[in-house]
Amino acid sequence: MNKQKRFLLQESDIPTQWYNIQADMPNKPMRPLNPATKQPLTAEDLAHIFSLECSKQELDTEHAWIDIPEEVLDMYKYYRSTPLVRAYALEKALDTPAHIYFKNESVNPLGSHKINSALPQCYYCRKEGVTNVTTETGAGQWGAALSYAAKVFGLEAAVYQVKITLQQKPYRGILMRTFGANVTGSPSMSTRAGKDIITRDPNNSGSLGTAISEAIELATTTPNCKYALGSVLNHVALHQTIIGLEAEKQMEMAGEYPDMVIACFGGGSNFGGIAFPFMRHTILEGRKTEYIAAEPSSCPKLTRGEFRYDYGDEAGYTPLLPMFTLGHDFKPANIHAGGLRYHGAGVIISQLIKDGMMHGVDIPQLESFKAGLLFSRTEGIVPAPESCHAIAATIREANRCKESGEQKVILFNLSGHGLIDMPSYDSYLNGDLSDYNISDEEIRKYLAGVPKLD
Amino acid sequence: MNKQKRFLLQESDIPTQWYNIQADMPNKPMRPLNPATKQPLTAEDLAHIFSLECSKQELDTEHAWIDIPEEVLDMYKYYRSTPLVRAYALEKALDTPAHIYFKNESVNPLGSHKINSALPQCYYCRKEGVTNVTTETGAGQWGAALSYAAKVFGLEAAVYQVKITLQQKPYRGILMRTFGANVTGSPSMSTRAGKDIITRDPNNSGSLGTAISEAIELATTTPNCKYALGSVLNHVALHQTIIGLEAEKQMEMAGEYPDMVIACFGGGSNFGGIAFPFMRHTILEGRKTEYIAAEPSSCPKLTRGEFRYDYGDEAGYTPLLPMFTLGHDFKPANIHAGGLRYHGAGVIISQLIKDGMMHGVDIPQLESFKAGLLFSRTEGIVPAPESCHAIAATIREANRCKESGEQKVILFNLSGHGLIDMPSYDSYLNGDLSDYNISDEEIRKYLAGVPKLD
Repeated sequence: MNKQKRFLLQESDIPTQWYNIQADMPNKPMRPLNPATKQPLTAEDLAHIFSLECSKQELDTEHAWIDIPEEVLDMYKYYRSTPLVRAYALEKALDTPAHIYFKNESVNPLGSHKINSALPQCYYCRKEGVTNVTTETGAGQWGAALSYAAKVFGLEAAVYQVKITLQQKPYRGILMRTFGANVTGSPSMSTRAGKDIITRDPNNSGSLGTAISEAIELATTTPNCKYALGSVLNHVALHQTIIGLEAEKQMEMAGEYPDMVIACFGGGSNFGGIAFPFMRHTILEGRKTEYIAAEPSSCPKLTRGEFRYDYGDEAGYTPLLPMFTLGHDFKPANIHAGGLRYHGAGVIISQLIKDGMMHGVDIPQLESFKAGLLFSRTEGIVPAPESCHAIAATIREANRCKESGEQKVILFNLSGHGLIDMPSYDSYLNGDLSDYNISDEEIRKYLAGVPKLD
Repeated sequence: MNKQKRFLLQESDIPTQWYNIQADMPNKPMRPLNPATKQPLTAEDLAHIFSLECSKQELDTEHAWIDIPEEVLDMYKYYRSTPLVRAYALEKALDTPAHIYFKNESVNPLGSHKINSALPQCYYCRKEGVTNVTTETGAGQWGAALSYAAKVFGLEAAVYQVKITLQQKPYRGILMRTFGANVTGSPSMSTRAGKDIITRDPNNSGSLGTAISEAIELATTTPNCKYALGSVLNHVALHQTIIGLEAEKQMEMAGEYPDMVIACFGGGSNFGGIAFPFMRHTILEGRKTEYIAAEPSSCPKLTRGEFRYDYGDEAGYTPLLPMFTLGHDFKPANIHAGGLRYHGAGVIISQLIKDGMMHGVDIPQLESFKAGLLFSRTEGIVPAPESCHAIAATIREANRCKESGEQKVILFNLSGHGLIDMPSYDSYLNGDLSDYNISDEEIRKYLAGVPKLD
């Protein structure tokens, strides 16, 4: 009854450095390529799109620890540390011997982990004299976080939001405008990439890949404007390691160490954020921990995609990235998988999968919402539809423990709350949702345009 | 730069008792009356509607400290302590010498302080063998909290939500259903009180007073069903004192003591929750602190209502309560004042106002949203429309400090976030909102049916 539930760090114990797993990886990620020259990309190449500092971090395979700038740490302290919570009520409902912990990033400003990278990205832009920042957003969590971070550091923000989510979930669009951002539904007529798509397909409801193309085009055609990405890239996962570094100290306070670390998987930032700090003990000390990335069955790049050099966006504006992909013109089924609809995985994650350091599981939509509902009713927090995938994977493992009698310690990342995603829950409660499993043939079709590796 | 921003208590420092200000008040609140007999109400009278334990707490003027049941404390520890935050960014934007602190109840499950009383109310019902609980809700924060708390303690919940907010802000209705509650728009055809109103006025969009009547009628006509109220009553404010008791310890950690305590005001529960624990030092030790309740100009019961014996609901099912009121058939203007649309103030608050221990200020709607927008853009938390009133009152005081050069310490309660209230912000950003000041004549009209005190 009196067992401690929440573990919080004193302000002085909040980590002051991010962890760069690239420095410790036994096999470094393959380098992104300049699509024109097929030469390995340099930080200077990337800095045409991103801030210079983020471009350097992206390719840094030397420094395992990178200082968090004072100004960013100062903003982190508005909301960090986030609680590590022992999910006693969920354990009880599952009648499992497993010990379930979750890191609660849902109490962050804007309700998700995204703010952890939005703040440094905007800070570096500001420091380098940039005045405008642009990005894409799917469900809107990243766009909302960037809008706030831009306001904090005095930048103007322009956000391209996937048209269908802007319509289906209008609250996040309002939220971005509350922070003063300019919000445009994508595809739009404001870019060549958008116009091309609308001309071919006037009713196109948008994809993350298209929205990225539009934002990059705006950034590269607007003076003093940089692009910011909310996931996939190495520097984004780097910033998110604040989650796992805190969790490590907090698990120590709880007197346990995770046998499994679980997070949902879109591009990899919240997964990398919680997993990489623990993974360093696996790499450096051989500590046995299982790392599980939970992706939706409707967008199964980790479990059914292929490892290739592919573009990060629909129009092909980005460098070629070595990654597990479903093909850059993959169109996710129009179901409520929230933000987890991106066609590819980050290059670090892709390498780790190749090396057998971690693995993906795919979660059908109905299972994810069932898990979210149970979590809501036990722990009192309505999870984001994305986070429901991590909860579903956790429940699978907890049920396995029940069968085997093993008392495993499971840590998952609650990447965000679902209070702005209530229409998804409405659909689920009304029985309007179904599962969707993409066929092998469809995947082959999307991958046909992506050259195989030699 | 490195000044501490957030103050959190260790789990072992979370208060284990609530503070009952009734025991220390120099003038006790006048007793509610049985409307039939005009005799002072007993706990047994109240227990027809409420749980017996809450009924006792309601009339308890003897015990200053009441133990929080172990089972409730256990649930509190899922989310408490909430952070006390020094609002450096807001201070900077206002260029004020004032030190502004806020207690962040927005990170609670369901996003507001309401859960603090929903949990004990459901716990006591459960303990007393009740199986069903019913309530009313305006903006939906209380209804959502009660739905979750009912689930936690294994009760069925039925919620009457003011019809217009159920339509204008659909997300909270979905939220309640996510927790398994039955949600009905009020006025409804399911009660005599509702039918009477719909018969007279088929387009009636509902009021809190009507929804209370419906819920009480359901409770009194259903076996094993009790009614739970989210504000106004003494036992609700009692449960909410956990806010101020924590804040007291946290202000001590910050090395300061508030010159002013500010909260928004609907029925008085979040105000009492943060103010009463500090007020005990004013009562017992003569400590000088100003207590300010911020109400909307459209529903100005504290600043322009009258002190009378009045009903708590529209149909007259409740006891007669001695309170500042605008009349129990007061109909608030149809503007976005969120949950602050109730016609009366709790009896403790009403007595404290009479005794000059605290005072109200009325905040026009546009000023409240302007304050909320500034707070969002500085502190990164979108406040509930209700909480915006507290922020507006805080900004007024901080601006006065700027003029006078005084370095006052201001503490306000951020009662909840506004993420589910984004349509209100949308209206504000689109310029669709206006101010509304009720005329003296209207107030006289509503009060005409309420007998004056002898």
